[in-house]
Amino acid sequence: MKKNCLIAQSGGPTAVINSSAVGVAFESFRSDWIDRVYASENGILGVLTGKYFCLNDVDFEQLKRLKTTPSSAFGSCRHRLKDWREDESEYVQIFRFFQEKNIGYFFYIGGNDSMDTVMKLSSYSKEKQLDVIILGIPKTIDNDLALTDHCPGYGSAAKYIGTSLLEIYQDAHVYQSELVTIVEVMGRNAGWLAASSALAQYNGKRVVDLIYLPEIPFSMEQFLKDVKACFDKTGNVLIVVSEGIRDENGVYLSDSEPLSDGFGHQQLGGVGQRLKQEVMNHITQRVKCVEFNILQRCAAHCLSETDVEEAYKVGKEAVHYAENGKSGCMVGIRRVSDKPYLMKPDLFEIDTIANQEKKIPQKWIVSEGNYVTQECLDYMQPLIMGEKFPDYENGLPAFSVLKCGE
Amino acid sequence: MKKNCLIAQSGGPTAVINSSAVGVAFESFRSDWIDRVYASENGILGVLTGKYFCLNDVDFEQLKRLKTTPSSAFGSCRHRLKDWREDESEYVQIFRFFQEKNIGYFFYIGGNDSMDTVMKLSSYSKEKQLDVIILGIPKTIDNDLALTDHCPGYGSAAKYIGTSLLEIYQDAHVYQSELVTIVEVMGRNAGWLAASSALAQYNGKRVVDLIYLPEIPFSMEQFLKDVKACFDKTGNVLIVVSEGIRDENGVYLSDSEPLSDGFGHQQLGGVGQRLKQEVMNHITQRVKCVEFNILQRCAAHCLSETDVEEAYKVGKEAVHYAENGKSGCMVGIRRVSDKPYLMKPDLFEIDTIANQEKKIPQKWIVSEGNYVTQECLDYMQPLIMGEKFPDYENGLPAFSVLKCGE
Repeated sequence: MKKNCLIAQSGGPTAVINSSAVGVAFESFRSDWIDRVYASENGILGVLTGKYFCLNDVDFEQLKRLKTTPSSAFGSCRHRLKDWREDESEYVQIFRFFQEKNIGYFFYIGGNDSMDTVMKLSSYSKEKQLDVIILGIPKTIDNDLALTDHCPGYGSAAKYIGTSLLEIYQDAHVYQSELVTIVEVMGRNAGWLAASSALAQYNGKRVVDLIYLPEIPFSMEQFLKDVKACFDKTGNVLIVVSEGIRDENGVYLSDSEPLSDGFGHQQLGGVGQRLKQEVMNHITQRVKCVEFNILQRCAAHCLSETDVEEAYKVGKEAVHYAENGKSGCMVGIRRVSDKPYLMKPDLFEIDTIANQEKKIPQKWIVSEGNYVTQECLDYMQPLIMGEKFPDYENGLPAFSVLKCGE
Repeated sequence: MKKNCLIAQSGGPTAVINSSAVGVAFESFRSDWIDRVYASENGILGVLTGKYFCLNDVDFEQLKRLKTTPSSAFGSCRHRLKDWREDESEYVQIFRFFQEKNIGYFFYIGGNDSMDTVMKLSSYSKEKQLDVIILGIPKTIDNDLALTDHCPGYGSAAKYIGTSLLEIYQDAHVYQSELVTIVEVMGRNAGWLAASSALAQYNGKRVVDLIYLPEIPFSMEQFLKDVKACFDKTGNVLIVVSEGIRDENGVYLSDSEPLSDGFGHQQLGGVGQRLKQEVMNHITQRVKCVEFNILQRCAAHCLSETDVEEAYKVGKEAVHYAENGKSGCMVGIRRVSDKPYLMKPDLFEIDTIANQEKKIPQKWIVSEGNYVTQECLDYMQPLIMGEKFPDYENGLPAFSVLKCGE
């Protein structure tokens, strides 16, 4: 007997999280096992509050455009379930909803925290023999999920960062005057996004001079030495710094005491601003700070085709795994070969993934701690390959709006 | 007898200033009047210091790629010539260079200040009967040059701003929680860039709720009222603000006294940060501030095809005007018709342009002072039409590097 399926999105948005959702939806439409395809609004919260809609009723062109629409089209949440052995109430609510709507398959697209939800729901479903298949689908620009070779969402963010750095480099070299440019990128605990800036090169020549990662304890003294050395050589330094850098004691630089600018004004703001002030105090007054901010996680006008298609593929493959009765797993990516780059969706047990974090291996960071190695570049390079442009209307990207803006 | 020509770029970079340079270069290659095509490094400074190179010697593919390479590939400067009646020394140097290199035509691509240079050099050339043709070619993302319908460079910046705002809107609506997002864009005296954010729409529905322009004296009290009214209605407000807004006394908000955050910390930084703090103090703690910074003037991965082609066309047309002996003018754009949009390069006397500023007409701003009218939208819309993508190599835009990075 056919059952319905439910898709939900959770955690921070990416440029391709909707591509995975479309992958699940289109494969579900074709499935002999699945009847209606529902989407829950704002992740698991929509299940708890009964807010959902049916993708079978959505205009097909709208759905197709979702593949290149950034952010979570169904809405997202940051809701953490309690342990069901301590408080079962939300679980009872969720599975009552599943029963009422005849949901046999639940696909949760998200990052670390969302995989925690997948783990808890699937363990509950198994324990209570509730016969609902629960699968996780990865997404995160941070690329920090364990076991999977990489995460959908990372490739497009990396492509945006690499592209913008090439452009910033052009801009920064336009005048004869000296200049230090500091670019702050996301990544609280893992430096994959900052590392991706190393992909920006001209004929094999580095565009970014220095990269600071959360994986390496940050020393202000060494930082100023590094910058000074570059500055003395060329007078023009381009630095990328991860928002998550911490000092030797593990204190986030962004949390540390605000700095005086020498006029008694205290400087607040992010890591980039903080470093800017240090460079101004010690090296040169000509310092610019650029923050990519949320632009880096929603730039659908700068999608990696590889990323969009892989996101779609893991969504599609999740339906096949569900049909085969797999539950309590995440559908990740296995790298089959490097050259040529080949990948394959693969299944990973959810309790080996939830609440874990994959950082950049130390051997992929140069011994000075301020750049990544060629091996790291070789790992990242295939993930930004190919361009997938959204449709354009009236000179701007034509995105689908489902939940938002109604 | 054939003469050589010289091209130089000046002022802040744009994404299409090189397209104009290529327009001049390719048309000069074809010209019966022009022999060698030189490019001066860092604008007029290269003439003064004898730093230049010859575009005839540059690889043709490199030159072609310049058309979609952002920033000023020949380097730029912000050098203002003195009045030659007071100090002739730099003029003597410049025209000695012209004579030595047999330069008969000088094309200067730039904004307001650069047109001042064109005016001074052409008046000197005329006065001293030096027989060098001097023409200005407009570029500025600010769109603030007088007489010309619009400026090459503006359309692509507007497209980048509209695109990024559509993406930010998607990102800002992903959670259920309340949020005020403030986006700071460039524009010190004219609000064209801020106005272009109004182009971001979904099916005719506004994406940006409020736009604050330098053309309208800024009142913090009214601003907070506007934001509160939007916030009370939807809980999610998207605001665009020009860096150049000023209070009733003409004081730039960015120059005004830093504000306390309520913890005694003084907040410095741009207008966006300043407004963020005010909204936090009076309306909600959930405020994000995004600054497009230099990204908006060099985003060659998001070019308006119309802009690229028009930039090329005015460059090309400048050569024809030069061949016909026109000097002391700027080659601007005349709008022939609105629907369908048709333009034509046209010649404007330089002394009617230099040191002037074109602002948004008051009748194109709504009476509340916080948005633009449909007429303004109709003016901007054609300028962002069409997409021109750069070549890609290894997943990133392949830009030409001439002066920079050698």
